[in-house]
Amino acid sequence: MIQKPRGTQDLFLNNSKEWNAVEEKFRKVLNVFNYGEIITPMFESKELFVRGVGDSSDIVSKEMYEFTDRKGREYVLRPEGTAPTVRAIIENKLYIQENLPYKTFYIGPIFRYERPQAGRYRQFNQLGVETFGIDSISHDVELISLGQSFLNELKIDKDVVVEINYLISGDERKTYEAELKKYLSSFTDLCSDCQTRINKNVLRVLDCKIDGNKFTDAPKMFEFASQENNDRLNKTFIQLKELGIETQINFNLVRGLDYYTGLVFEFKNVKTDQAIIAGGSYNNLVEELGGPSLPASGFAIGIERIMMILKDQNIKVSDEDELDLFIIPLSDEAQFLTNKLLLEARSANLKVDTNWNIKNLKAGFKSAERMNAKNIVIVGENSINSDNYAIKDQISGETTEVKFNDIVKYLKGKK
Amino acid sequence: MIQKPRGTQDLFLNNSKEWNAVEEKFRKVLNVFNYGEIITPMFESKELFVRGVGDSSDIVSKEMYEFTDRKGREYVLRPEGTAPTVRAIIENKLYIQENLPYKTFYIGPIFRYERPQAGRYRQFNQLGVETFGIDSISHDVELISLGQSFLNELKIDKDVVVEINYLISGDERKTYEAELKKYLSSFTDLCSDCQTRINKNVLRVLDCKIDGNKFTDAPKMFEFASQENNDRLNKTFIQLKELGIETQINFNLVRGLDYYTGLVFEFKNVKTDQAIIAGGSYNNLVEELGGPSLPASGFAIGIERIMMILKDQNIKVSDEDELDLFIIPLSDEAQFLTNKLLLEARSANLKVDTNWNIKNLKAGFKSAERMNAKNIVIVGENSINSDNYAIKDQISGETTEVKFNDIVKYLKGKK
Repeated sequence: MIQKPRGTQDLFLNNSKEWNAVEEKFRKVLNVFNYGEIITPMFESKELFVRGVGDSSDIVSKEMYEFTDRKGREYVLRPEGTAPTVRAIIENKLYIQENLPYKTFYIGPIFRYERPQAGRYRQFNQLGVETFGIDSISHDVELISLGQSFLNELKIDKDVVVEINYLISGDERKTYEAELKKYLSSFTDLCSDCQTRINKNVLRVLDCKIDGNKFTDAPKMFEFASQENNDRLNKTFIQLKELGIETQINFNLVRGLDYYTGLVFEFKNVKTDQAIIAGGSYNNLVEELGGPSLPASGFAIGIERIMMILKDQNIKVSDEDELDLFIIPLSDEAQFLTNKLLLEARSANLKVDTNWNIKNLKAGFKSAERMNAKNIVIVGENSINSDNYAIKDQISGETTEVKFNDIVKYLKGKK
Repeated sequence: MIQKPRGTQDLFLNNSKEWNAVEEKFRKVLNVFNYGEIITPMFESKELFVRGVGDSSDIVSKEMYEFTDRKGREYVLRPEGTAPTVRAIIENKLYIQENLPYKTFYIGPIFRYERPQAGRYRQFNQLGVETFGIDSISHDVELISLGQSFLNELKIDKDVVVEINYLISGDERKTYEAELKKYLSSFTDLCSDCQTRINKNVLRVLDCKIDGNKFTDAPKMFEFASQENNDRLNKTFIQLKELGIETQINFNLVRGLDYYTGLVFEFKNVKTDQAIIAGGSYNNLVEELGGPSLPASGFAIGIERIMMILKDQNIKVSDEDELDLFIIPLSDEAQFLTNKLLLEARSANLKVDTNWNIKNLKAGFKSAERMNAKNIVIVGENSINSDNYAIKDQISGETTEVKFNDIVKYLKGKK
């Protein structure tokens, strides 16, 4: 038997319905925040991520699905969503002054060749938000309140806290990184990733999964930050608190990707210590990828993790919508009339169905029950000849006789 | 500058909005038809399409993006949507009796390495429908009425006709194919594709783009069909007509894919001669891919083609939704109050925005106009001190004074 690729999943029945409902909630929240959607291809030039994410990152060095087309062009399945969005902003010149600030979101698959685990897939899905052309405390606060609004919309409001930190840049960052390197040079037993990262992106050594917990005495970034930076972090913290958003400053928060500058944040589930939403500012990326100098910021949400939380907390997002009518046709002529009724009722937005395989009443009622139909009607010789259709309400058990041409009107009236 | 891969597209602003609206209309129609969504991975085993679509097809022999993962497994970006759906039906045992008939739909990207042209992309998108466990005239009629309902929902109701044909099978098919081969053997100048297909899938020679028009005298399939088959085609035709669906029988319609059996159909734009919707029955595919013997049928719609028709016919699918309020903050304190108001208003489903970059009234009004805001409010020293916020209605030009805490209520009342 041919199977799906390792680390991927199929979604169907209630899972795909909940999935779609989560995406729709995201679109709804993003609409009231006045963000527009951007849709970019599933694959991109390999170079985009080498330059945009950095070739010292796990993502680029180990986790990409790479392929060449028949002309030898090097592509990868997109391993994250920010670099493609920035590529599209630049290529389509969406950064022109009259568009700014440009606020956009994306929804879709991301691909990483990682070890599959519970809730971790090789094709997983992200809801992402990116903004271009704004850099201020008010914007940072608004961006985080967008994340909060989405979680509120999903009713995920237990055990979540927002952790924030402010990454320093320029000369202060250089001084800090030099001190950090000096400190790390005293360790002789670091893992190979750490040894590479000390020179490529020393900050990431701090959140190494193997050695990270050895560095409790490491110099702290905020000690090297300007008064202005620390003020900004504090003001952001205070404003979020005043808006009623549960927030903590976490000076060790540096985020896994190389491109972050300025504010970084994570919405964390305090019970599982897992990040639900993660993001920050990346003020250099647009220019590094060949565009103008343009501040930028954003965040991403893993849909799979959201689905797990919804399941754990027993939250149902999709609307209950039952079948308005199940039709039981008992002859060929009845089947044709059923098709007529189906088409008319569905055009009137009624959810209606039948089962063409059923040959008798017993099978018909069984089908109707399995589909949880609110009403049932039998189309048979008697009803056709008398133009009297008995519509049975499955909840009250009552039966109402209606003419064929009035069935849709009758059902609309019951809604 | 790094560019998107050749033959792919970015969608944003109005294009992504229209795109999403088309997908939502599709989901809405499929919901009233009681179909559930299925989501399968973007890539699958190469073997799935070699077995499912056939290695003599253009799709499999020339047009797949192929790659291997780090363990040497052979994958391809999915070049069509039916084989992955069948694979998922089998692998997840969705064919169990109590699920049947299983009626499902998918929405998503498809990848083919073809020569890019206007409206033809290497990553394009399909809306697809597949059903399992039903094979009857009534079902065929319902399936086509589903396609019609979707086009009605989009208001694409001009110049469209449904062409139908019925592919014969079993011994009749063998007799017909033998006759067809005999007929074709008299041609000595056929293209290499035709020469391959004569032995692999002789029917497809008839719709060869190079030689197809040479075969006007070829034996016709319906002459070899049983009375039962021809009756079925005629009954389908008559029932569709009676349901008000513009239908024609086209005996030359054989469809490009190898797996079709029984009914095949295309919704055609008679002005451009292009297919908008195409599908049919494929009663052997589930078994060929390792599942039980199960009749199946479905159709697919290219979203890009739908978008082109909507544009040509000047049809707008997405709802007009303007900004309910644009806020102009004139100080740091005003920015914080603005964030408070934004959060409250958006939580109440009002579409509200500001621009953190604006520093004065003139820039504020310009921003508000560009965003087509229905109402504007200024948050400045005066309004804050007096708790009197002048909300200007951009259509009537009138101004109403409202307290800060009443702004959301006031705007809700105006909707």
